[in-house]
Amino acid sequence: MTLSGRHFVAGRAEPGEGEVFTGVDPIGGGALAPDYREAGAGQIDRACAQAGAAAPAYAAATPAVRATLLRGIADGLEALGDELLQRITAETALPAERVLAERGRTRQQLQQVADLLAEGSWVDARIDHGDPARRPQPKPDLRRMLVPLGPVAVFGASNFPLAYSVVGGDTASALAAGCPVVVKGHPAHPGTSELVGAMVTEVVRAQRLPAGTFSLLHGRTPATGGALVRHPAITAVGFTGSEGGGRALFDLAAARPQPIPVFAEMGSMNPVFVLPRAMALRGSRIAEQLAASATLASGQFCTSPGMVLWLPGPGAGTFAAALRTQLGASRPGPTVHATIRSGYERVLAEVRALPVAVHAVATGGDAAATKVCPTLLAATPDAVLAHPRLRSEIFGPALLAVPTHEPADLLAIARSLPGYLTATVHGDGDDFEQHAELIAVLRRKVGRLIANGVPTGVEVCASMVHGGPYPASTDARFSAVGTSSITRWVRPVCWQDWPHALLPEELRDDNPRRIRRMVDGVEQ
Amino acid sequence: MTLSGRHFVAGRAEPGEGEVFTGVDPIGGGALAPDYREAGAGQIDRACAQAGAAAPAYAAATPAVRATLLRGIADGLEALGDELLQRITAETALPAERVLAERGRTRQQLQQVADLLAEGSWVDARIDHGDPARRPQPKPDLRRMLVPLGPVAVFGASNFPLAYSVVGGDTASALAAGCPVVVKGHPAHPGTSELVGAMVTEVVRAQRLPAGTFSLLHGRTPATGGALVRHPAITAVGFTGSEGGGRALFDLAAARPQPIPVFAEMGSMNPVFVLPRAMALRGSRIAEQLAASATLASGQFCTSPGMVLWLPGPGAGTFAAALRTQLGASRPGPTVHATIRSGYERVLAEVRALPVAVHAVATGGDAAATKVCPTLLAATPDAVLAHPRLRSEIFGPALLAVPTHEPADLLAIARSLPGYLTATVHGDGDDFEQHAELIAVLRRKVGRLIANGVPTGVEVCASMVHGGPYPASTDARFSAVGTSSITRWVRPVCWQDWPHALLPEELRDDNPRRIRRMVDGVEQ
Repeated sequence: MTLSGRHFVAGRAEPGEGEVFTGVDPIGGGALAPDYREAGAGQIDRACAQAGAAAPAYAAATPAVRATLLRGIADGLEALGDELLQRITAETALPAERVLAERGRTRQQLQQVADLLAEGSWVDARIDHGDPARRPQPKPDLRRMLVPLGPVAVFGASNFPLAYSVVGGDTASALAAGCPVVVKGHPAHPGTSELVGAMVTEVVRAQRLPAGTFSLLHGRTPATGGALVRHPAITAVGFTGSEGGGRALFDLAAARPQPIPVFAEMGSMNPVFVLPRAMALRGSRIAEQLAASATLASGQFCTSPGMVLWLPGPGAGTFAAALRTQLGASRPGPTVHATIRSGYERVLAEVRALPVAVHAVATGGDAAATKVCPTLLAATPDAVLAHPRLRSEIFGPALLAVPTHEPADLLAIARSLPGYLTATVHGDGDDFEQHAELIAVLRRKVGRLIANGVPTGVEVCASMVHGGPYPASTDARFSAVGTSSITRWVRPVCWQDWPHALLPEELRDDNPRRIRRMVDGVEQ
Repeated sequence: MTLSGRHFVAGRAEPGEGEVFTGVDPIGGGALAPDYREAGAGQIDRACAQAGAAAPAYAAATPAVRATLLRGIADGLEALGDELLQRITAETALPAERVLAERGRTRQQLQQVADLLAEGSWVDARIDHGDPARRPQPKPDLRRMLVPLGPVAVFGASNFPLAYSVVGGDTASALAAGCPVVVKGHPAHPGTSELVGAMVTEVVRAQRLPAGTFSLLHGRTPATGGALVRHPAITAVGFTGSEGGGRALFDLAAARPQPIPVFAEMGSMNPVFVLPRAMALRGSRIAEQLAASATLASGQFCTSPGMVLWLPGPGAGTFAAALRTQLGASRPGPTVHATIRSGYERVLAEVRALPVAVHAVATGGDAAATKVCPTLLAATPDAVLAHPRLRSEIFGPALLAVPTHEPADLLAIARSLPGYLTATVHGDGDDFEQHAELIAVLRRKVGRLIANGVPTGVEVCASMVHGGPYPASTDARFSAVGTSSITRWVRPVCWQDWPHALLPEELRDDNPRRIRRMVDGVEQ
């Protein structure tokens, strides 16, 4: 496939209309052909209006039809083969094995929601039979299930060029829910986006679905994203990225004449607590795992661990030393684009202006101006409590070590934390029981609690929660990953005394789809 | 119980600190003793802070403990006996049988969520077992369920002094979810609120729950409600009332440093479509039902029908005449407070300045300056399409008749509608099939579709949806009525590789609570 700077507006391949930008080689810094132009206002409007026009027909497509679309996209991703893999590597500098793994994960996400549709119970069907004989009022027959909201605007993230991008988790769950999608591709990987967008456009066409079911727009200015969120045809927004970016979209959506829900996943510091018995038994091993997790892919994960806290006691000294050694021995690595590198350096400078010590900076290997250096910082509990900045994400391979004096320090810091995606606790023996209050506090702060592991590695399954209290996300009631992510894009509708033959299949008495339902208050 | 203007701040009965107001006899217009003072800033802060302090302990209370609280409140409501019923009548002028029915409904709401807790499956438990042997990465053990958000601010509505007030659906579902509640009582019925608030405070105390589990504040200024919504301890808001009021709270909540979800149910025009065969067969009967529904309790229901549309054909003339007769013969009635009456009259004047005809005004019976007159208005399809005001709720006993010329008119108007709580279709024979497109459009506009009935009468059950696209509600993904309303106040948490003995009961392998769960992707 020849890349040519195409947007895909409801099935139509076309160039953009605004300013020119390109993908950039994150290591060499050179521009990557072709040129892309920012989406024009008319293109944004057409993409959204066509999504609105397609919404009723696409919502009416059977679950089987939607599942076929999702599987077609999953297959198409693989069919793009080396061309896609190479373009991702060129645009993001992510290592080949990571790119391959991410493609696998993205396919899995698409397939899992396709399976969810095939099973069908996710629509949360409920039936309450009527009783015409009830007094004083007859009881009506009421039946309810989930239906799609309408067109969803999806913002691709930079750090996952497939799994959180054009056909990532937001797009997969929205298409599964029955919602057309308008994607704004991340400007750091426009070529990757174009390849995937062309493929999806072709799958939509081949399966004879409404053209407005999918559009891909390129852009790098806030104006383009803002126009998308403000468009009257858009009914919900999915975003993964920075707190600033997510909040800006949330504010725009809330200020609309008709506000719409925004699920923005905005990152997290993912603190790690090492409790005394675990420390004594396997502190060095934990330090090793933690350093690997914190520096993986230059720390470019929402779930990258950014803070580690522990108590004095056996193993603590060895642990601290091992952390220094491990971080110091790790290697500078590229970021997926220059803005991440400059952001990392800016925030590190801010943090170093606070009462923070630098315990290790990895400068070895083939360091280059385009790479970021893993950095081990250290602060006292008092400093962490005094400076909110030390409780905020540093996107990149930085880890803040917080040796504490007593359990009350852990508790005080835990209480001071904002919302995060995850918290990790290393414990052994009676550690968990001894620190029950700490764990209770952490449970209130996060979407996922991890025992004896690392926060990186987000399993794609029904039980996953990738979200959390603000600012981890703009709405803790939902998850961006796993099959439950579909509930972001649906709403319940109730049919009262409706002619039985005209009810959706899911609500008919004979239950032709054989789904789990709640009937007269009983799970069946 | 002697009313004395008490607020209940986390178990403490105390007077307010701000300006004085009283309940008012809606018919005579006189002040009802005692005096109430607006909540002071310190009281609001204490109520919210105590709710925050109580949140962990109350969230940790077992489902059985929470169910006992809810049943205790339901019993307490009945135990308040005639004193409560009489105070409601005095403050709202609602007829005695309606007050009795509303008490029954409110008790039912409390009991239904108590039953939901006893059954237990609502927590949506999911388990994905780990696989240490999986390559390249071991698969972690992941388990997820819903947990309470934290303190919820509940705003009582004026038109349902029990069912949407101090212990109405918002409070019942929030307490069931495990969230402490701070209620701002509606200033139109402060005595009713005080009686109920005192009872709840006593039940909370008797059951030895944290005092901050429940507070009741009185107030009538936007400042009091605003302070509640902005308080950092508050994690969600429930509101039933006007679009202006709901939107103001939504905007405040969205502008917080940490935005919180607001579920505001803001009313609806609840259009009724009478299709040709139904018209021919039973037009007069429909007119009768519709007039009764539109004038019931002076139209003071979110679900009161405000617009009726039909096609020319057999029965249409008789239907229109019957509507005039029925509306004209109905009787002026009191409103629950003077602001509703003045609002009704103001909006009617606005509407009458548009190209709208007045077909009937009911002025008979014991009309009085404190009552509102049922009014039948009429407009052409063009006028409805031209003037958004004609598609907006008129809170009170007004009905806008829209005789149309052809099916395209119905469709054009349906497409122009904003979000509503309900739409009703009267059809017979092949009416529904003949107007499939109309019904498809209506499905996208509402939370509940009703066949051959009236929108008033909201059944409290699992299948009910009381909500809808904006401005019917601020988030169409939830319902204010029925057991599903609990999902407004909860979020999922995932435990990864967590020590099995420390997992919540709902997530343990032996499933001690015998709840429905999804295990390894399979509903069990």
